[in-house]
Parts: sequence; structure tokens; C-alpha cells
Amino acid sequence: MHKTIIIFFLFSLTLLMASEPITPLPQNVKVNQTKAKLGKELFFDPILSHDDTISCATCHNLQQGGDDGLKFSFGIKGQEGIVNAPTVYNAYFNFRQFWDGRAKDLQEQAAGPIENPIEMGSSFEEVIAKLKKSKYKKLFDALYKEGITKQTISDAIAEYEKTLITPNSRFDNYLRGDENALTQNEKEGYELFKSKGCASCHHGENIGGNLYNKFGIFDETNSEWLGRYNITHKERDKYFFKVPSLRNIARTAPYFHDGRTYNLKEAVQIMSQYQLGRHITKEEISKITAFLKSLNGELPKNIEP
Amino acid sequence: MHKTIIIFFLFSLTLLMASEPITPLPQNVKVNQTKAKLGKELFFDPILSHDDTISCATCHNLQQGGDDGLKFSFGIKGQEGIVNAPTVYNAYFNFRQFWDGRAKDLQEQAAGPIENPIEMGSSFEEVIAKLKKSKYKKLFDALYKEGITKQTISDAIAEYEKTLITPNSRFDNYLRGDENALTQNEKEGYELFKSKGCASCHHGENIGGNLYNKFGIFDETNSEWLGRYNITHKERDKYFFKVPSLRNIARTAPYFHDGRTYNLKEAVQIMSQYQLGRHITKEEISKITAFLKSLNGELPKNIEP
Repeated sequence: MHKTIIIFFLFSLTLLMASEPITPLPQNVKVNQTKAKLGKELFFDPILSHDDTISCATCHNLQQGGDDGLKFSFGIKGQEGIVNAPTVYNAYFNFRQFWDGRAKDLQEQAAGPIENPIEMGSSFEEVIAKLKKSKYKKLFDALYKEGITKQTISDAIAEYEKTLITPNSRFDNYLRGDENALTQNEKEGYELFKSKGCASCHHGENIGGNLYNKFGIFDETNSEWLGRYNITHKERDKYFFKVPSLRNIARTAPYFHDGRTYNLKEAVQIMSQYQLGRHITKEEISKITAFLKSLNGELPKNIEP
Repeated sequence: MHKTIIIFFLFSLTLLMASEPITPLPQNVKVNQTKAKLGKELFFDPILSHDDTISCATCHNLQQGGDDGLKFSFGIKGQEGIVNAPTVYNAYFNFRQFWDGRAKDLQEQAAGPIENPIEMGSSFEEVIAKLKKSKYKKLFDALYKEGITKQTISDAIAEYEKTLITPNSRFDNYLRGDENALTQNEKEGYELFKSKGCASCHHGENIGGNLYNKFGIFDETNSEWLGRYNITHKERDKYFFKVPSLRNIARTAPYFHDGRTYNLKEAVQIMSQYQLGRHITKEEISKITAFLKSLNGELPKNIEP
């Protein structure tokens, strides 16, 4: 009996010492508002695409979770993409951009789709020429002494994307001390999220987006999705992807790099099976999903074009 | 009853479909034996240090797990290091070298300690001058048309280090199908290793060494060990380290970047608390530790100087 008390005491002490694996999103980040304003215009402007049909917002719809709700996006001439479009919300907090992390920051990312033949299908030469003949000439010249360049275009877009953050989710409010911000069910879901091992990869302020790991640790690895291998060509990088952020996850279906499911519960089940090699019950999945829904943050103001 | 059978069937199917998160080490890797022979001489030769007192083998003792069994190593003039020396065994299989991953491969790593003031405290200028006046002149000239350079010195050492692999651990034999290679206790330990979530980070052929993650996901983050932050200076990289390989873990105490414990059971307990935020019982720790001991591989032949 005495021993039990000691064990219970040590166990409680361990729990007391533990801190939360997730921290709230900052409520704002430092942004150059003038550049962000220009970036916003570019973000919504199809002028960046070869045939003036596709803008950043086409695949990153700010009213719909910051992505397009499609398995794969469509670029110019109806071409279908080959990977699920990640949300632009809170992308600023990711340690790298794209599923395979090939862009080191928002600026490098922003330049990608413009020149991707199946996305905007343009070139910076073409885009710069078009912009120079437009209203943008004056706007860029006022802000950047180098005028319109690949660098300044990406810089303005990246600056705008820094405003696309979603703080003050109910879960963040809970972390900040508001015990009533979550229901009992959601709290239990969070405890399961931690105790089942989800937090091993989904942690930090963005609940992911800060490391690479293998997709399918416990699963057959015969997928055509090679992830970072396509960048590094190292065998050991096969099936490695950036662990995605879980913020606003309930708004960003379909899930995974291949958009294989629209069902959040199924996504949780797949993660449990593939990443943790464990069976979790329907009830547990239901609670974890409830917790995940509490991660929807406040959308920025003025997300209309 | 009928429903139970279906659930049981689906559960079994899930398990059947799962593959192991760990794969056996290859039994050999392609090595240029002539260069490796030269690299071996360099590896054991204190000529690489400023005062001819420290060789690679000083901190990477091949008879003692490929490290020195110390919390921190000692460099020239009795200077104490600031991080636990990782084992050189199977380092070839790591995706980056050093705890903070600052070297991209063995060659880049090999050059590090030579110029580190508190390790070998030399410079390549000095080392090259000494080598050119020694037996090495002829050996290098025979192998490298550029003779003795920083590049060729590191290349030869790295080539030798490719021979320092430890295949055919009992666990690898078990993975290859020898059911008797592990005791029941060790098998249960492996199942716990998987079900508790250890395999989320320790997976692949080197059971780690293929990703960065945060040390102390569930712990206070007020450590002086900043890990990758020292390289990137990004707040989000604070406390991120390369997940170390668990191969030969029973031979490589003390543990962690700060060598905080010599006790493998305590190391398991710390991981469980810091990384998984969960309590595991003494019996579970004991079984997991038994499994970890089965990861000792066969040492290479001729590891004497």
C-alpha cells in the first residue's frame, strides 16, 4: 500500500513536470503592410499565369481553408496537379515549404507555381514583362528600388502570406488557460492525441510543419509518392515528407499528400495504422477528431480579393 | 457476437498488412579498400591533432562501442568537449552527421574535429604540412592525383568509416526470419517499442539517424542545449537534434547529447517521459531494454590499430 502511494506520487510528479507539446500560435507577426497590400493584389491576380486564368487564390482559396478542397489542383489548360495543395494558412510557421520541403521559405515557395508548367505555366520573364505594362509598374517602383523582379514579386506575395495566420483557436485559448474553451470530449481527445503518440510528430506552434518523417513507418512502402527522395535521390529519403500542420485540419480536406480521403476520422485511422502501428477504437478516433476540430483558428480580416 | 468477429477480423487484417518499421542493416557496403586502408591508418594516427596526442580513435574507440564511454570527450591539452561523442559505428547510415546534423556526410564530418580548437586543435594547413613530411606522402600520391589535401584526407577517413558497420545483430536475424534469434522477453520488448510509439522516430535501417526531432516534446524547454538552433538560428529549431541510431545502444553509454545517464533503463524512461509524455512501468522498461540489447551487431574484423 505504502509502495503504491509512492508510485502514484512519482507518477503525478512526472505529469506535473510535463509541459504541453503544443504552444499557441502568436496573435500576430511583424508584417510590412505596404508590401503585403501589393502581395495581396498579386495573390489574387491571374496575371501571374501564362494565360491569365490561374491566380495563387485559385488553389489557395482563403474562404475555404486556404486550399481548394480538391484531391489535386488544376493548373492552366485544365491540367491536373500531382500532389495535394497544402493550405496557405499558417504556412509562414512551417520550417520548409511544399510537401517535400524543397523551398526554404515562403518567398522561395511563391516563385514555384508561377514557373511550374502544370500550374501557372509561365516564366518570370513573361510575368515581369506583363507586370511592367500594367498598374503594377508604379506600385513596385514605389516600394522596391529594383522594381519588378522575380525576387520582388516573390517578396511581396510572401509578405502577404505572413498575414494569413489563424490564431485564437479554441484549443489555443484552452492552452492559454481558458478551461471552458474545450468540451470534455475534446479534452479527452487531446489526451488521447498525446498518449497515443500523435504529438511525437505533430507538436510545436504549428502542430507539425517543423520536421520531416516517413509516411508509412508501419506500412508497405511501395507507394509512387517518393517525397523527399525526389529532391535528394537518397534511398533513405524515400517516403519522407514534411509533417503537415494540423491547424484548421477540419477545413482542409482532402488529406495527405495524395488527398486520399476527405474523411477526417479515416485520416486519423490511417495515421494510427501507418505511423504508430496500432489499432485505435472508433470511440478514440471520434474523440481525437473532436479535438482536431478545436484547432480551427480565427480567419484573418479582409480575405476577399 | 457476429460484430465482434468482424472487428477481430478487420483488426487482424490491419496487423497482417503492417510491415516492420525497422529493416536489417545491409551486410556490407561498397568500399574502396585501398582508400579505406589509408583511412584506417589516419583514423588511428594522432598526427591529425595539433600536438600529436589525439586521434579519431581516441574518442571513437572501436573496441568500446565506437565512442569513448565518457559524458564528454577530452581533446588536446585536457580540454573537455561540450557534447557527447556519438558512435562511429554505422554512422555511414545516418542522413546527416553530428548531433545537430551540421555535416552532410562522413567526409564533411571527418574534417570537423581536426580543426575544432577543443578537439584536435589543428588546421588543415598544419596537418597537410606534417603529412607531407611523413610516410603518408607516398600513400596519398599513389591513390589521389591531387595528393594530400583537406578533401583527400577526409575522403580516406570517410572511406574507412564505411567499413565500420555492425550487421547481423540478433534482432536483424529475427527480422530476417529466425524466430529463435530473440527471447520471448525481447520479442515483447519489441512489441512495446512499437506500441508505445518509440518507432515513430526510431525507424529505418539505422533505427534512427534519419530525421531531426525535438528533444523534450513534453518537457520544459529551458535546456542550454539548443541543438539545430545553433546552426540555423531559427527559434523553431531550438532543442531539435538528429534522432540517434539505436544500434549497439547497449555499448554506447552514456546517453543523449549531454550524456546525462549511463543507465539504459533510465534512458528509456527519459525518452518515454520527454518524447511520448507517458508513464511506462518498470516491467515495460525492462522488456524494452532487453529488446534494445538485441541490437548489438557483429563488430567488423580487424578493428585493432
